[in-house]
Amino acid sequence: MTIRYPNGKKFQQNRILSVKKNVNIKDDRFSNRGMSLEEDINETNEYYRTHNLAIIHKKPTPLQIVNVNYPKRSAAVVTEAYFKKPSTTDYNGVYQGKHIDFEAKETKNKTSFPLKNFHDHQIQHMKAVIKHGGITFVLLRFSALDEVYLMKAEDLIFYYDGQEKNRKSITKKQIEACSYHIPIGFHPRIDYLKIVDKLLSTE
Amino acid sequence: MTIRYPNGKKFQQNRILSVKKNVNIKDDRFSNRGMSLEEDINETNEYYRTHNLAIIHKKPTPLQIVNVNYPKRSAAVVTEAYFKKPSTTDYNGVYQGKHIDFEAKETKNKTSFPLKNFHDHQIQHMKAVIKHGGITFVLLRFSALDEVYLMKAEDLIFYYDGQEKNRKSITKKQIEACSYHIPIGFHPRIDYLKIVDKLLSTE
Repeated sequence: MTIRYPNGKKFQQNRILSVKKNVNIKDDRFSNRGMSLEEDINETNEYYRTHNLAIIHKKPTPLQIVNVNYPKRSAAVVTEAYFKKPSTTDYNGVYQGKHIDFEAKETKNKTSFPLKNFHDHQIQHMKAVIKHGGITFVLLRFSALDEVYLMKAEDLIFYYDGQEKNRKSITKKQIEACSYHIPIGFHPRIDYLKIVDKLLSTE
Repeated sequence: MTIRYPNGKKFQQNRILSVKKNVNIKDDRFSNRGMSLEEDINETNEYYRTHNLAIIHKKPTPLQIVNVNYPKRSAAVVTEAYFKKPSTTDYNGVYQGKHIDFEAKETKNKTSFPLKNFHDHQIQHMKAVIKHGGITFVLLRFSALDEVYLMKAEDLIFYYDGQEKNRKSITKKQIEACSYHIPIGFHPRIDYLKIVDKLLSTE
């Protein structure tokens, strides 16, 4: 008889063990030490700002605020709000007079990047930014491999629009072929402006 | 004997009448019809986007999210969040390859614009954007007069930094002398890109 959890799922003895194993194997000299891609990029942007290299910020999470309480003698509290789908990319700012606009996404997959990570209005936004002369791209992290790539929005759009032909993801080989690998550093963590310099020099 | 409301304030017969009077006097052919400056700018930005002139968005209000409920079968609800002070300006985007970055403020005053409308970190942000070659300014509305001005961040900073000399506001005359008046239109409502064109041509 198979023992089942109340949720109907099978009990798997070796599930936790196998996760632990991965952690031990991983060489974490420069690994993300449990930091999310967002945290790494925020840290990188802060480095850029404090070193006067660029002014790039993450946009706040868009919320539909429904109810706010104004208690006496203390700060206003939002008591009901809902997450909205962002209509733009998450990060933008200015670098050498140029408008920088990008999105960051990570996957646990090791061989491909699922296209469902991107929303249609974000793709439309990137198309518009290209049209108006901004620099726009995505930072893609394969979190299990701790590898980060900068892919130009033009290439992402090529693959995204190919979804009509039943494309569900971009293979890692395709990403490697058209994107720039960003080595994980210490300070800044993800030095994507080095790649932007390359993009600007080939414009 | 003076009749008083339960809140202790005197009853003023002509208070409501005088407000009504103002409304009647106002020529509202092109007035804001009760729309806030934010609504007017959002509408203007939408016009710019749909007419392929520029890609400029308002940043979402920054909130510190403390608690989120995930009810079964319905959307996640933020049940506790607090307003954070923004560390940047509210609006940014790209126009003709240039990074555009601005803040919008309104006052009910008729003869001066109080400097307390601006936060120190917003001024610091504008200084940084100037340094990195972005175009940054403020849109100032005198709501009682329905007049909107575009003031370059450089000029705002001049007056803001002058606060040490006990400056509390910028007089309307000073604003008129260094800023650009933007006539209120119908579509778009506040056509600030026309002024940006002027700024770009004199760069």
